[in-house]
Amino acid sequence: MRPGFVLGIDFGGTKIALATATPDGRTLRRARLETRGREGAPAVVRRALGAARRLITETDASAGADGGGGSEHGVHGAGLLAAGVSTFGVVRGDRVVLAPNVPGWEDLPLPALLREGLGTPLLSLDNDVNAATAAELRWGRLAGVGTGVYVNVGTGLGAGIVADGRVVRGANGAAGEIGYALRSPAEPGYAAGRAPLEEYASGGGLARRGSALLGRDTPAEDLFGIRGDPRVDRLLDGALDALATAVANLAIALDPERVVLGGGMAAEPALPSRISATLAAAVPFPPVVEAGRFASDAALVGALALAVDALRA
Amino acid sequence: MRPGFVLGIDFGGTKIALATATPDGRTLRRARLETRGREGAPAVVRRALGAARRLITETDASAGADGGGGSEHGVHGAGLLAAGVSTFGVVRGDRVVLAPNVPGWEDLPLPALLREGLGTPLLSLDNDVNAATAAELRWGRLAGVGTGVYVNVGTGLGAGIVADGRVVRGANGAAGEIGYALRSPAEPGYAAGRAPLEEYASGGGLARRGSALLGRDTPAEDLFGIRGDPRVDRLLDGALDALATAVANLAIALDPERVVLGGGMAAEPALPSRISATLAAAVPFPPVVEAGRFASDAALVGALALAVDALRA
Repeated sequence: MRPGFVLGIDFGGTKIALATATPDGRTLRRARLETRGREGAPAVVRRALGAARRLITETDASAGADGGGGSEHGVHGAGLLAAGVSTFGVVRGDRVVLAPNVPGWEDLPLPALLREGLGTPLLSLDNDVNAATAAELRWGRLAGVGTGVYVNVGTGLGAGIVADGRVVRGANGAAGEIGYALRSPAEPGYAAGRAPLEEYASGGGLARRGSALLGRDTPAEDLFGIRGDPRVDRLLDGALDALATAVANLAIALDPERVVLGGGMAAEPALPSRISATLAAAVPFPPVVEAGRFASDAALVGALALAVDALRA
Repeated sequence: MRPGFVLGIDFGGTKIALATATPDGRTLRRARLETRGREGAPAVVRRALGAARRLITETDASAGADGGGGSEHGVHGAGLLAAGVSTFGVVRGDRVVLAPNVPGWEDLPLPALLREGLGTPLLSLDNDVNAATAAELRWGRLAGVGTGVYVNVGTGLGAGIVADGRVVRGANGAAGEIGYALRSPAEPGYAAGRAPLEEYASGGGLARRGSALLGRDTPAEDLFGIRGDPRVDRLLDGALDALATAVANLAIALDPERVVLGGGMAAEPALPSRISATLAAAVPFPPVVEAGRFASDAALVGALALAVDALRA
């Protein structure tokens, strides 16, 4: 007898990724479509739900072909046990806030729409970094950890915090939004429309600052490739120091067993080595630093982990 | 029938405070003695245990005099349900570390000694700031809070972090030790024997820096009293900004409902107002800032709260 499957949907700024998986995390089917945010939030959700229903049907059908129980329920989609969804922004109650990528995203009651559209009451929604943290916690490098930190340095910057073996969401779903952290007291912050640490040190921030410095469009990975130019070295060293200092202060505050790194910049060896060195210098009990198990699909695997969390709650 | 009582012991650098209380937090008896740390850890523990046993006997006796059940158990101290202990330092497993105040404190298996000396298996031990956080969580300004932060600015500097309604201890009992936080990347930190933020901005740090500046012994509260001297203003403003920035970054990371302030410097109106202003400028969802319910006896009430936690665990 087949135990049914879970569905994960990851809403990203440029693409929507979907997958079905067994409750123990074996991926069954995947799909992917463009976000096309300019079409507006309702259209994005409609297309995502269409893709999700097709994926559910395919997963059901393949379960039937396997001789499994997916089709024995006799109704379309009956094999779906729970769904998990990751999204850009901050999930606050029944709304997603701080999500300017897709016009109207903040106005939709996304959890309710998705529950209804997928026909499952078991649906868990969180932001992409918290979802990636849930993935590392359930199946990756944070498995078995009581206190831990996941830091995602990609286009944006965010963290996921684990305490007592669970992802901390905070009072407004905004725990871990360290892109807003201040580097110095005088700096204009969130209320001035700024995200100081993210603008200074994330991949997106570095690309903007490096492009301005060099007078040509330069992604962050290219900046790491032209080390030796003193202006670029100063830019990168400043960003690495700022990130390492922020992670060290977070580790001082939380005393985690482990710091796991994700996002595109985690692939630059300079990042984990600078963070490790700063932790060794500043933290009473320096945690282990390592790369996450899941790379570019961390948020999608995280959506699957959220679904399993919902199932087991 | 009387339900018995709990015992709290707070080991401080200069005094040891003890109290018995009902499990719902009504204080029954109190006692207090000098720490006299120079006599060494075993002597300090021996005197504290002596005082604790006397307090237990007195509490038992007064329960008997009240007609309660304290004496009906027929043996000395049978009314003691559980004990809680707060101490300077960091409680890591069966040892207290980072506790230079009392010579030998780090070498004693303190939890085992106290369990044996008090004759109760139900004993919970944590550092003073985590204990104060437990007091605010059970009976004070953090009651009912899911995510919260307690910040103690006294001679030292430390925080207590609440997630999912529980005090986060971290992997080594060192969560919340924000006195070690870096103010800037280049700063020498813990591994160099330093506690950067504490040295710069705690009451003790300010007293040292202010005394050096003015060429005479000046406690932190006196510095707040001589505002107007530009050198003192710069000193205090720098410290307040550093504290407010650290608390804001902690609030960004954790998204707490509430930030509760304790310690001597929490009584300076400039501290909560500077923190509130920085939270409003920097944190996406600025938490409420308020003074703790418990002042100079926060750690002792915290020890009682730890005892009740042990009882209900």
